[in-house]
Parts: sequence; C-alpha cells; structure tokens
Amino acid sequence: MEELKISDVYRAQQVLADVARHPRLIGPTQLAPDAEVYLKPENLQYTGSFKLRGAYFKISQLTPEEKSRGVIACSAGNHAQGVALGAARNGIKALICLPSGAPLSKVEATKALGAEVCLVDGVYDDAYNKALELRDKEGYTFVHPFDDPLVIAGQGTIGLEILEEMPDVEAIIVPIGGGGLIAGVAYTVKTLRPDIKVYGVQAAGAPSMFMSIADGERKRLDAVSTIADGIAVKEPGTLTFKACKEYVDEIVTVSEDEIAAAILTLIEKQKLVAEGAGAVAVAAAMFGKLPIKGKKVVCLVSGGNIDVTILNRVITRGLTKSGRICRITLDLNDKPGQLSGVCDVIGKHGGNILSVNHGRTSNKSGINNCELQVELETRNPEHVNEIHSALEAAGYIIIR
Amino acid sequence: MEELKISDVYRAQQVLADVARHPRLIGPTQLAPDAEVYLKPENLQYTGSFKLRGAYFKISQLTPEEKSRGVIACSAGNHAQGVALGAARNGIKALICLPSGAPLSKVEATKALGAEVCLVDGVYDDAYNKALELRDKEGYTFVHPFDDPLVIAGQGTIGLEILEEMPDVEAIIVPIGGGGLIAGVAYTVKTLRPDIKVYGVQAAGAPSMFMSIADGERKRLDAVSTIADGIAVKEPGTLTFKACKEYVDEIVTVSEDEIAAAILTLIEKQKLVAEGAGAVAVAAAMFGKLPIKGKKVVCLVSGGNIDVTILNRVITRGLTKSGRICRITLDLNDKPGQLSGVCDVIGKHGGNILSVNHGRTSNKSGINNCELQVELETRNPEHVNEIHSALEAAGYIIIR
Repeated sequence: MEELKISDVYRAQQVLADVARHPRLIGPTQLAPDAEVYLKPENLQYTGSFKLRGAYFKISQLTPEEKSRGVIACSAGNHAQGVALGAARNGIKALICLPSGAPLSKVEATKALGAEVCLVDGVYDDAYNKALELRDKEGYTFVHPFDDPLVIAGQGTIGLEILEEMPDVEAIIVPIGGGGLIAGVAYTVKTLRPDIKVYGVQAAGAPSMFMSIADGERKRLDAVSTIADGIAVKEPGTLTFKACKEYVDEIVTVSEDEIAAAILTLIEKQKLVAEGAGAVAVAAAMFGKLPIKGKKVVCLVSGGNIDVTILNRVITRGLTKSGRICRITLDLNDKPGQLSGVCDVIGKHGGNILSVNHGRTSNKSGINNCELQVELETRNPEHVNEIHSALEAAGYIIIR
Repeated sequence: MEELKISDVYRAQQVLADVARHPRLIGPTQLAPDAEVYLKPENLQYTGSFKLRGAYFKISQLTPEEKSRGVIACSAGNHAQGVALGAARNGIKALICLPSGAPLSKVEATKALGAEVCLVDGVYDDAYNKALELRDKEGYTFVHPFDDPLVIAGQGTIGLEILEEMPDVEAIIVPIGGGGLIAGVAYTVKTLRPDIKVYGVQAAGAPSMFMSIADGERKRLDAVSTIADGIAVKEPGTLTFKACKEYVDEIVTVSEDEIAAAILTLIEKQKLVAEGAGAVAVAAAMFGKLPIKGKKVVCLVSGGNIDVTILNRVITRGLTKSGRICRITLDLNDKPGQLSGVCDVIGKHGGNILSVNHGRTSNKSGINNCELQVELETRNPEHVNEIHSALEAAGYIIIR
C-alpha cells in the first residue's frame, strides 16, 4: 500500500538541502486588494520550477538495481528538466519522452542537463504511452510526474519551508495540474498545522481535479486547452486525488484572461517571470476567487518556464487591454497629405506610432476613400480617448 | 568634510533591517562561460530597485527640524520611489520633481507611495534645477540621488549582505550611473575585504564615470543615450568619483545590444525582470568584458523597473535576432491563389504566421507583381532557413 508519510517529507528536505535553491518568500505584496499576499517563488528554483524537488528525491531513493537500469519519464517540460538534473546528479542515465510539439526551449534545456530526449509524435498522452512501452521493453525505471508518494513527498518540502519561514501564515494557494504539488503541500501543512487553509487553483480550460472533487470521483477530460501548459492535465492521479479530497479546503478555477493578467502583473509589479501554470494561484488571489480577506497568504508561483514567444503575446495583449498599445482604423480621403495629417495629430498628442497599414481595397471604404490602420503606443485608456477625440476634431473618420 | 564611514554602513544595516527586503543570492548560474556567477537580485527589492536603501537611511538620519521641512528630490524614477517610501514610513512630506517624459508607470508608482509629484518640462537636469529652486524657495530638505555620504552608506549595505552570505566571493560586478551604488559597495567591500575585486559597468551610451576615471577628473557629457535609463547620468558625483578612483578595480562599458541580450537572458534563464541599468553587470559577465575566468562572482542586478513597452521591444528584438520571429518579403505574381500557396508552404514547415501585409504599390515589384510581407514565429535560425528554402523550391521569389 502506497501512502504519504511525513517522515518522507523530512527525509526529502535533508536530501534536497544542497540541491534545491531556497529563495525567500517575497512580500508583502499588494497583489490582492484586501489580503497580505506573499509569494513562494519556485520559478527561481533550479530548472525553473518546483518539479526538481520530487523528481530528485524520488531518484535518490531508488535501489542500486533500479538506478542501474536508468530512469525514464514523460513530460511536457518541467518534470523533464527535474528528472534530467536528478539523474545527472545521481550519476545515472535518463531518457525523457517529450511530445513533438514541446517548446524547443524546454527540449534544449532538458538535453543541456544531460538527458537523452525522445520526441514522440502527438500530445502528452502519446509521450506517456511511449515511455511506458520503453520501460517495459528496455527495463528503465519509470519516474511518474506526480502520482508517486516519494515525488509527492519531495514537493511537500515546499510546505515545510513555508511553515518554517512564516509560522503565522493563514492560507496557502497552490496551482493544480496532476496534483503532485498540492498533494505534497496540503498533506504536509495539514499534518503539522491543520489550522492553516490550503486552496487549489486550476485553469478553467483544464479543470480535471476541480471536476473530480466536485463529482467525488476521478474524471478524465476529453480535451484541455489553456496557456498554462504546465497544468494542462486530463486526469488527476489516484494518490493525488485522494490527498486533495482529504486535505484541500477548496479548489477554484481561473480564466485565460485572468492568468494572462496575473503573468503581466507579476512581471510589472514583482519583476518575476511566471509561466501560466505558475501564475494561477496569484490570479485566484488577484481576482477574489477565495475567502482570504484580511488574511496572511502565500501564493505558490510554481514555475517560470514560459516560452518567450508566448510571453511576448501575453505582454502585447496586456498592453492593448490596459490602453498602452492601441490600434485605430480610419476611413481616409485618398488624397495626398492625409497620412501626414493623421501622424501629425497623433504625434502632437504624444502617441508613438509603431506601424502603419494603408490600403485601398477594403469594401467598407467609399470609392474615393482608403482604410488606414495605425498601431501606436499610448499611456492609458484616457490617452487613447484623447487621441480619438483629437482625430475626430480634425475631421478624420474613425471606423474602429 | 563629508566622508564615508564604515560605522554608517553598519548603522544603515540596522535601520534597514525591517525595511528592505533581503532576497538570497541566486545561483550558481551559467550566465558566463567560465565563471561561477551569482546574482544579487535588487530588482526584487521593495520599489523595484536598491535606491530605497540609501534614500530611506538618509531620511531616517535627518534632524527633527530637517524632517519638519519635508524632503524634496529629483529623479528619473527609482530614487523617486525610494524617497517616497522613506518619507512615508518616516511620516514626513515628500515632493519629487520628475522630468515630464518619465514613464507613466514610475510617476504612478511614486504617487502611490504617497509622494507629491511635480512634473518638470525637459530632461533630468531640468528636474534637478527645479528641485534645487524649490528647496531654496520653500525650505525643503534635499535628498541627493547619489552624492551624499549617508545615501552611499545605505547602498553599502548591499556589500555587507554579499560578504555575509558568500564570504568566499572573489569579484563583485556593479552597475554605475551617478556612482552611489558602486561607491557604497566598493567602499564597504574594500574596507572589510580588500582581496575581493570590485568592478563597475556603464552603458557605452552614457560612460560618464568610465571617462572621468580614464581622464583622472570628473567629466560632464553633453548627451547620454541608452535603454538603461536608470544609469543615464551625464556627470558623476564628487564623492562617488573619489570613491571609484580609490576603491574600484576596473570600469568597463557594454553596448545597447549587449544590454538587451542580458535583459532577455535574465528573463529566459533566471525568470527575473531587470531594467537596462539592472542588466549591465550581467551583460559584462556574459560578454567577457572582465577578468573573471574561473572565479566566484556576484553580479548586482540593481533594479527591475523597466517600462513594459520597452520590455516588449527588447523581447521582440531578441526573438528576431535568435530566429524565433522572422519577416519574409516576397515578390508575388498578382493572381489568385498565390497568398494561399505561400501560407501553405509556411504552415507545412511549422511556421506560425503572425501578420500578413500584401501590397501592389512597391516600385521594387514588376508591373504584374505585388509585394507580400509575412511575419512568422519560427523555432531558430535553421528553421528560418528551412522555410526560405521551401518557399524558393516552390517557385516563390524572396526579396529579403
């Protein structure tokens, strides 16, 4: 019978003492309107996420015979890097099955840590099946990304660290994908300090644990879709589901826009880069999803391995939403001087033009007119309105 | 006679104990090829930069009479927030003169900390003169951003913290603007541990201390231009120049591209947001500007208050340089199906189209041709080449 033991969490803490980084809690922040929110920045962990803890501890506890067979794992990214580092530091071979669509940055990072990478056509589930197949055929020792008591104990060390650093914490908010992180943290915290609340957060586009707990039994989703790729898991684990049922006070979901807003806020206000999965706990606090009013709260920022391309899109979207980039489309008389006139009005009102698109073929314009699309940097929504008004006052027609 | 005293640095450490954040050193990192580089993340400091330390300590040491007159400061951003917080926590009034072009985010942050803001038309120098004028007219107590022994002592606490946390450090690399930070760190470190090297880094576009030290006397630059706005200072201070001459081993400069690359690397590899000024020490380590081979080094990341608009540009530029965004311009036969054909080739080779610009008016195209500009997400330079080759193999003409 596999079960969680607090002694394993303490052993993991010893094993990880010189392996994991131990950045201090960051805060208090003003991330939530009515709560004192601190951050546990596991994005600053080696390999960019907490996954190192569980993977490393699990590998360290293998028998010499299991180690000699090498380890195999499947992962969309973060677990891969944790296993690769754990194997390299323990001097054993690692093969990681990654779905072929995994971001190149994560593939490269895994290789750089010394693991062999097997790219599998398809999605995470295909990589998982391939890893099991290779385990059976080649004899590798399989390291599960979450549903393993020693992996969970490794993640539980985060709970110990929070209790040691902030004994008066009142609530801890934790992202949930497969459930390994929250199982470890909730088990540890509730075992030692049952008075502290532990809340879980999932992306609304991948609510497998949320729905499983609501229904009282493990649910498998047909599809998941979220920018929080690190927690896009279709089905919770057996052990992790049981731990959530027993130790977690409440699970909520956050939308894609809320996740994007949390990523941008962490960048702007806390100078921290979080991946989507890493930002969901902060999103839940920011958008009032949980009963934390007046409380001293720790949000776990679980990882920072976001593809820069996606980061770029999140920032651009965020800038647009907050009125710091705007796009104005005008219906212009197609005669000389018009473009220069528009640019003049925009420049005089402090807008900084990023791009101009000038075309005659829109059927929304009159026969002698053309459509002009201008993208500009602005200060805020009021500034956008000011430029709109100035253009209209100068006689230009704004389509949108 | 104003002079630096190590007892002031120790007093500042006491005063700042419950005020400043004390994030741990981050590392070892692989930021430099042949050195063991750690980061002192002052971007995670309250107010997003180290400036809080000096400003707060200075304000705490004012006489009751000086406090009663309120404080005034001028700043392009970070010092403003430090003074605002210092004044608020000491219960006194603060007026901050900011140049009118200061990023709105910094203006808002300063106001949010309770200071009154006076926007002055012009640049930093104009704000400085306005602050002196108001000091003389209204009786405010002036808090200099760097050329003050108590401000310098406050920044020196960073040196103490590094020595306490990593006694075997061999070199410390520090950004230089006016010179307050490096004066404090170098004075403290060389007083206590003269065996440790202290290096300074400036932006090549604002090398006032670099040139002053080279010439043996304080130089005033006519103009400065760099994305590292936090260290765009035309003239070093008297005290800070003297301290650099006496305690700093070497000063080097880094280019704008090197600064941008360091910002992007800190985001991708360390999950930290640094402003340009905050990234110059890392840039110097990354690009081999200093004799640190085989050494244990701390790079000071001095701040993270970068405007998201600028961050967006740095990321986009970085993505383009590393082949993860590319722009291809084609000369197309202007007949139906051509655009779809191009998109088809790009899609089949895994390119993700971001924008399309299709126009007939370029005089570089033939009379029956049109110019098509496509912007796409790619994986790396090889991937860009692959798509180029595939387009040419399909008969399309690439202009650039």
